Amino acid sequence: MPASAPISPSTPATAQAPEALVALAAAAGPGNSSTDADELAPHLIDWRRKHQGRSALLLMPRTTAQVQAIVRTAAAHGVPLVPQGGNTGLVGGGIPSADGSGVLLSLKRMAAIRSIDPAGLTMVVEAGAILQTVHEAAADHGLAFPLSLAARGSATIGGLVSTNAGGVQVLRHGTMRALVAGLQAVLPDGELLDQLAGLPKDNRGYDLKQLLIGAEGTLGIVTAVTLKLVPAPAHRAVAWAGLASPQAALALLARLRAASAGQVESFELVPGSGLALVLKHIPGQRAPLADAHDWHALIELAGPATLQQVLAESLGAALEDGLIADATLAESGAQVEALWSLRENLPPAERLDGPAVHHDISVPVARLPDFCLAATAEVESRIPGSRVIAFGHLGDGNLHFNVRAPAGGSWDPDQAAAITRLVHDLVTAAGGSISAEHGIGTLKRADLARLLPPAHLAAMRAIKAALDPLGIMNPGKIL
Amino acid sequence: MPASAPISPSTPATAQAPEALVALAAAAGPGNSSTDADELAPHLIDWRRKHQGRSALLLMPRTTAQVQAIVRTAAAHGVPLVPQGGNTGLVGGGIPSADGSGVLLSLKRMAAIRSIDPAGLTMVVEAGAILQTVHEAAADHGLAFPLSLAARGSATIGGLVSTNAGGVQVLRHGTMRALVAGLQAVLPDGELLDQLAGLPKDNRGYDLKQLLIGAEGTLGIVTAVTLKLVPAPAHRAVAWAGLASPQAALALLARLRAASAGQVESFELVPGSGLALVLKHIPGQRAPLADAHDWHALIELAGPATLQQVLAESLGAALEDGLIADATLAESGAQVEALWSLRENLPPAERLDGPAVHHDISVPVARLPDFCLAATAEVESRIPGSRVIAFGHLGDGNLHFNVRAPAGGSWDPDQAAAITRLVHDLVTAAGGSISAEHGIGTLKRADLARLLPPAHLAAMRAIKAALDPLGIMNPGKIL
Repeated sequence: MPASAPISPSTPATAQAPEALVALAAAAGPGNSSTDADELAPHLIDWRRKHQGRSALLLMPRTTAQVQAIVRTAAAHGVPLVPQGGNTGLVGGGIPSADGSGVLLSLKRMAAIRSIDPAGLTMVVEAGAILQTVHEAAADHGLAFPLSLAARGSATIGGLVSTNAGGVQVLRHGTMRALVAGLQAVLPDGELLDQLAGLPKDNRGYDLKQLLIGAEGTLGIVTAVTLKLVPAPAHRAVAWAGLASPQAALALLARLRAASAGQVESFELVPGSGLALVLKHIPGQRAPLADAHDWHALIELAGPATLQQVLAESLGAALEDGLIADATLAESGAQVEALWSLRENLPPAERLDGPAVHHDISVPVARLPDFCLAATAEVESRIPGSRVIAFGHLGDGNLHFNVRAPAGGSWDPDQAAAITRLVHDLVTAAGGSISAEHGIGTLKRADLARLLPPAHLAAMRAIKAALDPLGIMNPGKIL
Repeated sequence: MPASAPISPSTPATAQAPEALVALAAAAGPGNSSTDADELAPHLIDWRRKHQGRSALLLMPRTTAQVQAIVRTAAAHGVPLVPQGGNTGLVGGGIPSADGSGVLLSLKRMAAIRSIDPAGLTMVVEAGAILQTVHEAAADHGLAFPLSLAARGSATIGGLVSTNAGGVQVLRHGTMRALVAGLQAVLPDGELLDQLAGLPKDNRGYDLKQLLIGAEGTLGIVTAVTLKLVPAPAHRAVAWAGLASPQAALALLARLRAASAGQVESFELVPGSGLALVLKHIPGQRAPLADAHDWHALIELAGPATLQQVLAESLGAALEDGLIADATLAESGAQVEALWSLRENLPPAERLDGPAVHHDISVPVARLPDFCLAATAEVESRIPGSRVIAFGHLGDGNLHFNVRAPAGGSWDPDQAAAITRLVHDLVTAAGGSISAEHGIGTLKRADLARLLPPAHLAAMRAIKAALDPLGIMNPGKIL
């Protein structure tokens, strides 16, 4: 749409005055906006097709100055902005509300990798850069950006920062928060917060970038990020172990951390029922061990080649001690990929097997094994016919705790709501979080208000009101 | 003072009504307060004796509930509270104002180590616990708390969190912020923010603990912290290298990080003039290398014993390539301590040699070598007779940039102010920070207001007003 073109008469009626939309399109710059329904459509629904929104206008700025102009214009006209990255979210955080009151702001055209500093182990990227592109750029310099998740081919850095994304390497490297050295964002008044310098030590008062991380766009719009990199590990030592319980898995993790001096990169818990689903539904997968086991651990150590022997010796000792029942150590890159493939195919295999209510929860790490078993028993006894499948990031205290419908059946919305309420109550009682890595968005907003301590909620609301008094930043998300 | 005792008539006149002081003492609990001038005196001046404050009352609660009662009482009476830990700060952040308007709140009686979770690598400690005690408790379990600094025998965890402390291991493990898994704090309305569960993954909205970290007590009172621990390294490989420039030092650091897969624990830059001061003033020290060098690097790798060979080979290659001029590798624990002693004695040696104006600054790591040389030249040319000594945490971009007076002379206050202004202007122009690890307190408050971008300052002020509308939390510090 040309910057100064009037909104077409065929544009659906919206909450915004036409002149506001014209001004926003002008602020985005020539060619950087659209009212075309076909172009808008994929931005208005999430990939799981659970959240359908409406927006009369899609803004796609190319520069930080254009984002600032958009925010100032939105503030002047009182129009809410809904920032969106790769639209890979799971909680509706990047989808406009169904009443069409918000305008979509896609960061996808701000995707440059601005610079890499191999000596300083940092990379400056724009918010719309895709995670996989970042991985590849780091690898070109013998470095790694140590955060990865299934959506890496679509997820953008801005979205990953705004949701404080997790993944399979959090155990060692932390969530996105720990990997952000610096950040640039447009604040709700259009002013620029520029902390891109990425100073490892900077104690000039409150660290404002920490507020933007995980705020899901409700406090400002992340436009660029300075990422921390690590040397690419020389070797990945990967193994699959069969064991009797989550308790044994946690004990194994503690041993491996000590034996490897903290170089355990991933430690994923997979139940026997989960492995069975993968073998049943995903072609080309094969069982890693001869016998069936109630639980499995997928282990990766990353660092010097000597870790292969560290892992072999640790698993040998664990076998002798009866801590694990069996194990296999990957001896080639192909075997590494085969073991990881079993874990990565678990979510799709589960979806192929039938419907489930999904939960992304965490509890204190030490409590995870007991919680996993007790919550499973509680849910399965209280929800007749349900079958829990709990898997994921044991070392982070983070489980994907999914409640499957009886074979051939499904959950109606009331059942699903009751299940989620039960799981979230159990998690809260265990001192845990109803959102480990996916965020709150609109999906968990009501349960957040129900379960977060009032003092915590009040402080969050005070901060939101102080920084975004007009309420134009992704309203209705989180709070 | 008994909880209900009236304030003695000999108590100096203060800004507070006597009934407010009585109520605060009652809130602290029996025996947990004092108006004794001798008992108060050491809390009212910092250890460098640069900031002298006044307070009619010292509160020393033993429980979190008592801290909550104190804060509610302070809010009811409009009395500012000044939290204090080990009183080892360098910027006056824990010292009450000279007008006596604030009341001192010492956390020193809340010093328990509540629990250690060796499997989860965490420890829950109260705010008043001393750093060295934490180090020892971790070591008892074969673990380490990887933050250390010269004041470790007095500095408390609450103070270290509230100032986001740094030290000599930030290069690998980050500042205090990166080592806080969870936190409990009393907010300005007396409500408790309890995030002690220390969930590695928790995306329930804004991460409020990040605001308390580094806030110097201006947004609430940290009462307990869940610290992250690491496996105690099996081996410390330590070396001292002589080299021609900070640029060579940064290149060496990059090589070592790559060769050790990121296991460089410390990398300290020491100028030849600094080593000379240590050898001159501190008994029992000796030169680590045969010849004099313009610059030195003190290097520590920590992890498996194989790192000794990694370090030896890396230094050998660096010698062959001409990147360094000479090096010595510690072959025993005594040699490790001897090399570290040279670095740790640099600040006291400098003080013994004569007066200086001290600066704790950081710039982007890649720019540090050029900045170090250019800023030294600029200061020495513009301040006649000055001699710069810049040393410290090269890999963090953090220098202690001290401007020494001419031999036998000293700086008058106007000269000192002009020097600091010049250094802070140079740092800001280089995209750096006027406070790398010591905080703002009262010492740097005016320069923060002068040099921080207005949008950044405005956001900080909005947050402060939103969370502490009565302004009772350590007013006059930072903002």
